[in-house]
Amino acid sequence: MKELVALHRDQMLEELIEFLRIPSISALSEHKGDVQTGANWVAESLKSIGMENVEIIETEGHPIVYGDWLHAEGKPTVLVYGHYDVQPADPLDLWETPPFEPVVRDGKIFARGATDDKGQLFLHIKAVELLMKQNGTLPVNVKFCIEGEEEVASPNLVPFIEQNEEKLSNDAVVISDTSFIEKGLPAICTSLRGALAMELQVKTANSDLHSGTYGGGVPNSIHALVQLLDSMRHENGQVAVDGFYDGVPELTEALREEVAEIPFDEERTKRDLDLDDLYGEEGFTFNERVGIRPTLEVNGITGGFQGEGLKTIVPKEASAKISCRLVGDQNPTHIYEAIQRHVEKHQPTGTRVSLHKYIQANPVAMDSSNEKLQIAADAYEEVYGVRPLFPKEGGSIPIVEVFGRVLNSPVVLMGFGLPSENLHAPNEHFHLENFEKGIETIGNYFTRLGKS
Amino acid sequence: MKELVALHRDQMLEELIEFLRIPSISALSEHKGDVQTGANWVAESLKSIGMENVEIIETEGHPIVYGDWLHAEGKPTVLVYGHYDVQPADPLDLWETPPFEPVVRDGKIFARGATDDKGQLFLHIKAVELLMKQNGTLPVNVKFCIEGEEEVASPNLVPFIEQNEEKLSNDAVVISDTSFIEKGLPAICTSLRGALAMELQVKTANSDLHSGTYGGGVPNSIHALVQLLDSMRHENGQVAVDGFYDGVPELTEALREEVAEIPFDEERTKRDLDLDDLYGEEGFTFNERVGIRPTLEVNGITGGFQGEGLKTIVPKEASAKISCRLVGDQNPTHIYEAIQRHVEKHQPTGTRVSLHKYIQANPVAMDSSNEKLQIAADAYEEVYGVRPLFPKEGGSIPIVEVFGRVLNSPVVLMGFGLPSENLHAPNEHFHLENFEKGIETIGNYFTRLGKS
Repeated sequence: MKELVALHRDQMLEELIEFLRIPSISALSEHKGDVQTGANWVAESLKSIGMENVEIIETEGHPIVYGDWLHAEGKPTVLVYGHYDVQPADPLDLWETPPFEPVVRDGKIFARGATDDKGQLFLHIKAVELLMKQNGTLPVNVKFCIEGEEEVASPNLVPFIEQNEEKLSNDAVVISDTSFIEKGLPAICTSLRGALAMELQVKTANSDLHSGTYGGGVPNSIHALVQLLDSMRHENGQVAVDGFYDGVPELTEALREEVAEIPFDEERTKRDLDLDDLYGEEGFTFNERVGIRPTLEVNGITGGFQGEGLKTIVPKEASAKISCRLVGDQNPTHIYEAIQRHVEKHQPTGTRVSLHKYIQANPVAMDSSNEKLQIAADAYEEVYGVRPLFPKEGGSIPIVEVFGRVLNSPVVLMGFGLPSENLHAPNEHFHLENFEKGIETIGNYFTRLGKS
Repeated sequence: MKELVALHRDQMLEELIEFLRIPSISALSEHKGDVQTGANWVAESLKSIGMENVEIIETEGHPIVYGDWLHAEGKPTVLVYGHYDVQPADPLDLWETPPFEPVVRDGKIFARGATDDKGQLFLHIKAVELLMKQNGTLPVNVKFCIEGEEEVASPNLVPFIEQNEEKLSNDAVVISDTSFIEKGLPAICTSLRGALAMELQVKTANSDLHSGTYGGGVPNSIHALVQLLDSMRHENGQVAVDGFYDGVPELTEALREEVAEIPFDEERTKRDLDLDDLYGEEGFTFNERVGIRPTLEVNGITGGFQGEGLKTIVPKEASAKISCRLVGDQNPTHIYEAIQRHVEKHQPTGTRVSLHKYIQANPVAMDSSNEKLQIAADAYEEVYGVRPLFPKEGGSIPIVEVFGRVLNSPVVLMGFGLPSENLHAPNEHFHLENFEKGIETIGNYFTRLGKS
């Protein structure tokens, strides 16, 4: 397999570049056509490697692409999930090269989607292609289910899964959309935080008012928003919303030890991110804070005059985007209601406050002793010479919990990204080392699964 | 004079429309050329009414226009001040007609600058023109000093005044840049709040970070900014910055009574502004809050993801524009230092915080018993049939304090705007009733001054 990968490397890289050129940003309506182009590209690619029953399934949002090959009788069935949509690329001026003009430099490929998730999804397509080239057949049955709405929390994939249990039935769901611990140290993630995202808006008057004439005498929407947001958090990093911590697992010694096993270099993280200091909930380590503790973050805020210089107004409206990461048995619906109650209780005088929910997803955990995960670890170990760790990640892949729950399958998160690859940020990239070894590892995994 | 105004009304309105078409926004560098065009327009206009020694005086920012007529021997000299620059026009989508395409409807002229201050400044030019037409001479000596940086706090006019005491010497400075109490009820403002404006910026990491991977473990620039801003204000509306109230005059019964004389209709204000409730410093009335109490307002805030939908990042930077209105003996320099100390003391962990001062101006008060103010009141009374009140206004015209202090003159703030005319907001307008009566009142005032 290694030789085959080397032989086809340049051709495969050309194909990936073509895929990365498509600005399939699912969050922005002006890119709807580009997301469709992304779906077409995936469908053509699946056909070209011999997948059958390839369809582009339209939804109320962006399409799902399905394809399968089910001729490995008596062998396990693998459902490969990935997403061809990408995050918005702004701020554009911070990209060294444009986000949708992929460039290879220093052994990395730079583009929006390079690691999240086009680059990683592409590994599976190519692993299947090369296995087929090598053996004229596949060691396992394969189903691809590739969506275009992961970055907007998969609103249409969830009902699709629920309505297509039979079509999607499998022995393992395999997803490459996570990261190594660091270069050379692979990881199979065994826990993902849930998510809840919303927008909080405050309105006061029907117009911005002159701060000379009215300042001090009328409510200020930014003051009110600031007051509301600040009331949601204690200075010690705890979330101050009543009921927020309901369902958060108690921190046992065993859990603390498990989390502490994942290497974390504080000095290096601070240096890499140019951070003066880390900050988080008092009494917890960095790994605990981002892995097994919930959080509430303001992701964006806007209100009043945004231009150059000054404009002395009392602003009539202000808003903030807020997202929570949830763990254990925290219930996103209950948390949202708790935040609604908090906002009502703390609503400042003379303001109209509204809350709008974007998305929610349950937290999920996988059992690292499951055979399908252990076989994946064997594959990594053979290719990388290191047995992967089983970390608990802070991110959310909302669909993981749904796959596990609805299809009742083990979900194997075999990521090939690196934490330093700027996902969701300017200059996103993917290391070509993991491009090559990733294809090899997946090929190795499928072959091992066929023999298991 | 009344007949003359009626005779030339349409022609004068055409000229004002031409003036209002110039987008002379001093705060935005891309409008530098337009501000220059505004200066040229004023200079040409002064020449056309017979002013002499007309010059466009270049500064480090936008030009000052000067012109005089000094042939009324033995008569008082009036220095007319005004500004031809305007506020930014955003948000553009809230204007019913474009800000720089003036339109007359319902007896009002709509355009950015209509009331602040092109429309009001124009009254003086036309009053002088009509007096000259009527009598072939003027009843007083007149100097015009018209600037293009009032909306950015007159950074270059201040040194110009200080360096040209002789050239600008006068018996009264007359400024029309304030408002009536309400339609039909004129006012000569006798107090203006000082101003202090700044930007507060918070930075954390060198890049926006994925809130899944890092959320809860690293500082969030928006949380830090929100915490800093909220720490500056108590929930009871008081400013929580140590030393902020130093120099604020004690609220005597006499002062309370004086302020209470100015009519204020709470229900109507709430209805007009579509406000559920008023809000301000506990223990003070609306008139007190906006007239004789200081305030600290956030005028704008920005940080993190601003687009449609959501983007789950921990934002690397956030900033807010803050302005204070000051009263009595509050010293803007000391207040700025107090805010600097407050920010240093409350700086959240892992953040880099910077404060940048835009402008500052001292508070100022005028004596309503001064003869020059009383004669102005006589002129209003003759034209409007109502004697004006002498209110204390919440706004700041930084240059008023400088005129009074450096040139040692009484400053007569004879405004012709209405408080409902949306100054600094979309759909700014000026009532044509006050356009006509304003010219008449100014002509009457100058005539009376000539006889005094």
